[in-house]
Amino acid sequence: MKISIIGTGLIGGSIALKLKQKNATIKIYGIDQNEENLNEALALNIIDKKADFKIGIQKADLIIIAIPVDSARKILPDVLDLISENQTVMDVGSTKAGIVNAVKNHPKRSRFVAFHPMWGTENHGPKYAITESFAGKAGVICNREESSEDALKTIENIVEKLEMHPIYMNAEDHDIHTAYISHISHITSYALANTVLEKEKEEETIFQLASSGFSSTVRLAKSHPEMWVPIFKQNKDNVLDVLNEHISQLRKFKSALEKDNFEYLEELIVNANKIRGILNK
Amino acid sequence: MKISIIGTGLIGGSIALKLKQKNATIKIYGIDQNEENLNEALALNIIDKKADFKIGIQKADLIIIAIPVDSARKILPDVLDLISENQTVMDVGSTKAGIVNAVKNHPKRSRFVAFHPMWGTENHGPKYAITESFAGKAGVICNREESSEDALKTIENIVEKLEMHPIYMNAEDHDIHTAYISHISHITSYALANTVLEKEKEEETIFQLASSGFSSTVRLAKSHPEMWVPIFKQNKDNVLDVLNEHISQLRKFKSALEKDNFEYLEELIVNANKIRGILNK
Repeated sequence: MKISIIGTGLIGGSIALKLKQKNATIKIYGIDQNEENLNEALALNIIDKKADFKIGIQKADLIIIAIPVDSARKILPDVLDLISENQTVMDVGSTKAGIVNAVKNHPKRSRFVAFHPMWGTENHGPKYAITESFAGKAGVICNREESSEDALKTIENIVEKLEMHPIYMNAEDHDIHTAYISHISHITSYALANTVLEKEKEEETIFQLASSGFSSTVRLAKSHPEMWVPIFKQNKDNVLDVLNEHISQLRKFKSALEKDNFEYLEELIVNANKIRGILNK
Repeated sequence: MKISIIGTGLIGGSIALKLKQKNATIKIYGIDQNEENLNEALALNIIDKKADFKIGIQKADLIIIAIPVDSARKILPDVLDLISENQTVMDVGSTKAGIVNAVKNHPKRSRFVAFHPMWGTENHGPKYAITESFAGKAGVICNREESSEDALKTIENIVEKLEMHPIYMNAEDHDIHTAYISHISHITSYALANTVLEKEKEEETIFQLASSGFSSTVRLAKSHPEMWVPIFKQNKDNVLDVLNEHISQLRKFKSALEKDNFEYLEELIVNANKIRGILNK
C-alpha cells in the first residue's frame, strides 16, 4: 500500500509511525510546504520519500490530510480533483462540519472519509510523533453514508491498525461534542496561562512553585495557534456557546466566595467531582 | 525519632512513607478522627501505631499536622499547649497566613514551623499515598524568623529527607503566589467539569471522546471539597482577585470570537504559549 501524508507534523507523523510498525511494506510519501518538517520527517524515517503535491497524490492508494483545519478544507477539493475512483482520501481534523460541507457536491465526494482521531498533545512537528499514541482512543468517522463502501472499509482498516475504536457520528454533532470536551479545555488552559502571566510577575516563582496540578491544568496552553485558531474559527458558534456557560460557571464560584456562601461552594465542588465517575467508567 | 502525624491521608501518608524509607528506625504514630483512614494507614504500614490525640502528641519528637487548613488552624494552639520546648510541630497546609496568625502570640510559637510541600493529587486517603511524591518539588517554609533555630533545623532536615528544595517566604506572599499558581487551577478545573456536565448530557459521549487533553485539564476537578473549601475560605481575597482576572481573560477570548477578530485570538494564544518557556526553564 502506498500512502501520501499531506502535513508531516505531530498527527501525520504519529499515524505514519504506527502504520509502518504494523506493516513494514507500506510506503509513505510526505507532502509538506514546510520543508523543515519534511526533511525532519525523512531523517526520522517517518516518511520514506518526499513528494511533490500532484505526483504524491496521484501515486498513493490513500491520501491522509493532516494539516490545520482551514488549509485542509481549502485543499480537499483539489485533492479530490486529482484522484481516481480507486483512491481514498481521509482527513484528521478536529472540526468536521466545515470540511464535509466544502465537498458536499464534489463528484468524487464518496472517495473521502471524514475522520478525527481523539488524540493530540501540546507539541507540534514530526519530532514529537509517537508510535503508540492512538491505541485505545476513539477514532470518530463522520457522515459515513456520504462515503462509498470501499473507501469506508479502507479507513476502518486504518483505524484498526491504529488500535483505535471507531465511533460514527454526524459532523454537526461531532463539532458540538468536541466543543464541549476538547475545544473549551484549550480556551480555559490558554486563559489560565494568561491569568497567571498577568498576575504573577515573578517568572522564577511560577517555575519554582508550579506543582504537577498547575502543570497539568495549563499543559494545553502550550498548544500552537496555527492549529487552534482555525479550529476555534470553524467551530465558533459551538465554542462560544460553551464558553458562555463556562464563564457563568466561574461566576458561581465568584459569587459563592463573595457572599461567604461556603455551602454553595461545596455544592459546586461536589457536582464537579462527578466527572471522576464518568471519566473512570 | 518519634513522629506523630495528625491526619493520615494522602499528604500525611506520603510523608510517612518517604521518611520511613529514609530511616527505618523512625517510629510513626497516627492520629486521626477518621477511624477508617487510621486503620487503613496501619494496614498499609504507613504508620506503626494508632495513637490518641494527647498521648500521641506528648510521645513525639515531631508532630506533623496534615488535616484540612481550617481544622489545622483550630487545633494548632491545642497542640502547642501540650508540647515541651524539646518538641517541634509543623503543618503542611496550602494556606499559611491563617495558621501563622492563629498562633502569633502563643508562648510556644517558636516550636512551630509553617510548611507547605508543593505536591498533591486529586485523590485523598492513605491508600493513595506515594513514597516518591515530593522529590524535586519545592517545600515552602513561611515566616522562618518566628520559629526557633533548632525547630527550623528539624524541619529543614525533614525537607531534605523528602528530597525537596526549601524555599523561604512570608506567609502573606505565599498565599498570594499559591492563589495564582495552585488555587485558581482548581477553580478553573471545577468550573470546567461543571460546564461539561451542564452542556454534555450524554455521559457516554464524555467517556468515549475524552482525550488526554480534556482529562489533564479536568483532573483537579476530582479533588475533595473537604480539603478545598477551607483553602478557598482562608485565601478568599487572593483567590477572588485572581478569579476576576481569569474571568476577564476568558472574556477576551469570547470577544475575539464574537467579533471574528482572529488576529487578536492568535495574539492571546501566542501570549499563553509563553508559559512553555517558563515551566520548562
